Amino acid sequence: MSPLSISDIDFQRAKSGPLSTAIAGYTSSDLFKSSGSRSNVEGKSLQHRLSVESRNFFGSTLKKSSNQVFRTKMISLGTGRPTSELYPWNSVTFHATSIDRQISSSSGTKNAIMLSESRTIVKRGGDYDIARGLNYSYAAGSPALLRFITEHIEIVHNPPYRNWATCLSCGSTSALEVALRIFCNRGDTILTESYTYPGVIEVANLLGVHTIGIEMDSLGLMPEYLERTLRTWDESRAPRPTVLYTIPSGQNPTGVTQSLQRKKAIYQVAEDYDLVIIEDDPYYFLCMDLGLDSVKNFTSAKRDDLVTASGYLASLPSSLLALDRSGRVVRLDSVSKILAPGLRAGWVTASDQIINKFIAYYEVSTVAVSGPTQLMLWDLLDATWGHLGFFSWLDQLSTRYRTRLRILLDACEQYFPKEVCKWAPPQNGMFLWTSLDLMKHPIILSGDHKEQNSSFINNQACGIEARILAKALEQGVQITMGSLFDTNKTPIAKVHFRMTFSAADESEIEVGVKKVANVVREEFAMETI
Amino acid sequence: MSPLSISDIDFQRAKSGPLSTAIAGYTSSDLFKSSGSRSNVEGKSLQHRLSVESRNFFGSTLKKSSNQVFRTKMISLGTGRPTSELYPWNSVTFHATSIDRQISSSSGTKNAIMLSESRTIVKRGGDYDIARGLNYSYAAGSPALLRFITEHIEIVHNPPYRNWATCLSCGSTSALEVALRIFCNRGDTILTESYTYPGVIEVANLLGVHTIGIEMDSLGLMPEYLERTLRTWDESRAPRPTVLYTIPSGQNPTGVTQSLQRKKAIYQVAEDYDLVIIEDDPYYFLCMDLGLDSVKNFTSAKRDDLVTASGYLASLPSSLLALDRSGRVVRLDSVSKILAPGLRAGWVTASDQIINKFIAYYEVSTVAVSGPTQLMLWDLLDATWGHLGFFSWLDQLSTRYRTRLRILLDACEQYFPKEVCKWAPPQNGMFLWTSLDLMKHPIILSGDHKEQNSSFINNQACGIEARILAKALEQGVQITMGSLFDTNKTPIAKVHFRMTFSAADESEIEVGVKKVANVVREEFAMETI
Repeated sequence: MSPLSISDIDFQRAKSGPLSTAIAGYTSSDLFKSSGSRSNVEGKSLQHRLSVESRNFFGSTLKKSSNQVFRTKMISLGTGRPTSELYPWNSVTFHATSIDRQISSSSGTKNAIMLSESRTIVKRGGDYDIARGLNYSYAAGSPALLRFITEHIEIVHNPPYRNWATCLSCGSTSALEVALRIFCNRGDTILTESYTYPGVIEVANLLGVHTIGIEMDSLGLMPEYLERTLRTWDESRAPRPTVLYTIPSGQNPTGVTQSLQRKKAIYQVAEDYDLVIIEDDPYYFLCMDLGLDSVKNFTSAKRDDLVTASGYLASLPSSLLALDRSGRVVRLDSVSKILAPGLRAGWVTASDQIINKFIAYYEVSTVAVSGPTQLMLWDLLDATWGHLGFFSWLDQLSTRYRTRLRILLDACEQYFPKEVCKWAPPQNGMFLWTSLDLMKHPIILSGDHKEQNSSFINNQACGIEARILAKALEQGVQITMGSLFDTNKTPIAKVHFRMTFSAADESEIEVGVKKVANVVREEFAMETI
Repeated sequence: MSPLSISDIDFQRAKSGPLSTAIAGYTSSDLFKSSGSRSNVEGKSLQHRLSVESRNFFGSTLKKSSNQVFRTKMISLGTGRPTSELYPWNSVTFHATSIDRQISSSSGTKNAIMLSESRTIVKRGGDYDIARGLNYSYAAGSPALLRFITEHIEIVHNPPYRNWATCLSCGSTSALEVALRIFCNRGDTILTESYTYPGVIEVANLLGVHTIGIEMDSLGLMPEYLERTLRTWDESRAPRPTVLYTIPSGQNPTGVTQSLQRKKAIYQVAEDYDLVIIEDDPYYFLCMDLGLDSVKNFTSAKRDDLVTASGYLASLPSSLLALDRSGRVVRLDSVSKILAPGLRAGWVTASDQIINKFIAYYEVSTVAVSGPTQLMLWDLLDATWGHLGFFSWLDQLSTRYRTRLRILLDACEQYFPKEVCKWAPPQNGMFLWTSLDLMKHPIILSGDHKEQNSSFINNQACGIEARILAKALEQGVQITMGSLFDTNKTPIAKVHFRMTFSAADESEIEVGVKKVANVVREEFAMETI
């Protein structure tokens, strides 16, 4: 069957009937998947991959009994849920930013409209309201929001096995903590890229789990090194790793995006060694391919929403989830980089067995994603934008970030000493990773050949990194040093730093880069500009 | 020095200077405490009470470096924080429920006003805005909200040691999970009331921690049993418990509130045996003392806000935190029962050493409480109500719940067979706990004396409980069965059920109780009414 497309959604919703209106009632992404998706092959069990802690844990009996959905209206003298009558808010109004929308009329002409994006959520009424939104919620999410997210996952990734499921998370950092608790025991080792998000190293550290970084090149994590690490593992010293954590698009900190071929090769190693893959992909939707701007420019071309959204969708890389025939990928999505980080929300997609473990953990900890966050997300994504509008937003957001990337790259080109600094434009995300050639540094150059052993270079590298960071701060610019991301904490023979074009005002990026460049020039005894 | 009062707040704020406006900048409740509080004696270290997991864990290096506050404006090419320019919301408007406010004029006359409670939070401006509220936040909370909460804690509890601190939590269930991870190793045992919140049993179960219930009477947990359990503990079999979990006000499920004398005796045992006390107190502000309605009725008497708030404050029980000279109490507060549960927010108060552990755990998991939740809470509590208004709300909310309690009690009085059912009106909270006298049950009555051993009664009790629950559901009423709360999961010789007056429509409570009463009457072969 052909994959679910945006234009199928209305029909599918009509077929699946009205949403449950029960308070914190059980719901599941399974209710919102297409019949095509449900006819795929079954994924494999990951029971043997579960930690001691999670294996026999099934969540809250109290919550499961409270979340029953009854056919008839019940008088509740049961669960201690305060009546919505006594919530001190009558309504909430969200004023969304207008985005360009192009709707085709039936006659084929296109009308440019700016939708008024101000909507009020009332106490009682509609698919979702204050009375339900500010009450307890089922851990997987509110039905109205979970429906949208499930459809979104199927449209974008179309996981090729039957029993995939999605639930909300309190952001990807939270989902990552829960994922490691689900899969890892103290003393286990997980595999990551050689430079990675420090959050994974820190939560692994908390859990007594080791991390080993796998070599990368310009196409990302290298499957041959992954395979070699697993093949040559000495099981007499520690259990062989069973979890790979990877950031496939716009990798943090290197900005690298794995090619499709690379992803297929990584997935094959995971199949061969029965690995769980945690696919942490918050930068997926931020397309930084600068070539895109020359072939299309949404705001000037005024093309139809559906055409634009389809073009944008087609430009997205294939995810590991989209290749996952066995149900071994745990994909983490986040709204932090595409809507706003303060929402503290995201979603997890994996086999239903694993999603049920996530729900069990959330039942006894955060209980559910914040109601105001869920209301705000539903109001924007489902009630205001719809799938088309969401993709239009992501497309326009990418365009805006590409403008910022171009300013950063132009400034690097203009100010950085190319004989010392190397960088490559990212395909996704919000980071530019820069390497310094230490062999050009005056201390290294002036040293005796005898002195140029690795410990000498390492000591110098630490000092050089620290000085560049401190001097940049003195000049009023924050950058992030590469050693923070180094999984293996090996003696560094290289100095890197990461710059982002996401945070500063556009007008400040150039002057920031110039200051950093001059700090580097000074450090390398070069003329400043 | 005299404790902090509401009328001191303006002066204290003026003295402590403007709030930090840095994004996710470091903040601390210490900035917002009175100098009187800071001059108390130092609490004791709890280092020896920390778990293996938490002892050497200090949170996220990345976050700590990102959360630095600089004196001068910095150009950020550092942390990957999306610029607020690209958040898809321009503003949010909250329409709060009006509450009665009485403000004295300078001439001494009182004006009854209904404040218009509609406020808009703009993208940039004021103490707190969308740009900061929807960006990353420091784990302890946003400065504007944390300031209010710290003042609130000091006004209500005035902890009697110097180095107490407060941070936000993602609700008390989340805080409880983190607390057990901070203090417990697998195989440890914690002490609770003999009937308790199932959430604590469930999270303990996840962590491989055992729970032992301590006997209770009508004044709550009995200190002599607590002491005996600790004194007679066989350390050769398992480590002696170091954590007591207690719900001191309107206990879930029994509704019991500990007297001040009882609290002092419990605290003394904790001092003698060096226990950490987790004081989980979500029902603290819901005063169910029906005597209160005869001496004061806010809405009809139209008294001054300050007088009302002071009277309400004086009516609140002393907390364990208020007795805590040593810094061994970890107090969990929640907005679930007093504002709305969907906010998923609360706060934790304990010694700064322990609060720093909470912040460390939150840094690598949920990162912070949802921004929309924090904005909504700040807007209501600080910008709209202020401390006076918040206490007025709590007073009026308690009055509304007392009305519901009275309806429930009247219906119990009218319909329940008193020869079989026993209940006691709660002093706090939202629950009524009812015991059934099994010795009046026809099966027990008809049994041989020989058969009336504990295993026979136990089997019958299980069946009776299950039948009452099922038949009530058939009649369209949910109640919660007592065995769900039984910590020791001992064979039950008694049957209890818990009813709440918080969830159903007021008009349905009576008919609900009547139906339950008739189910009990049928079960006990009595005439229905």
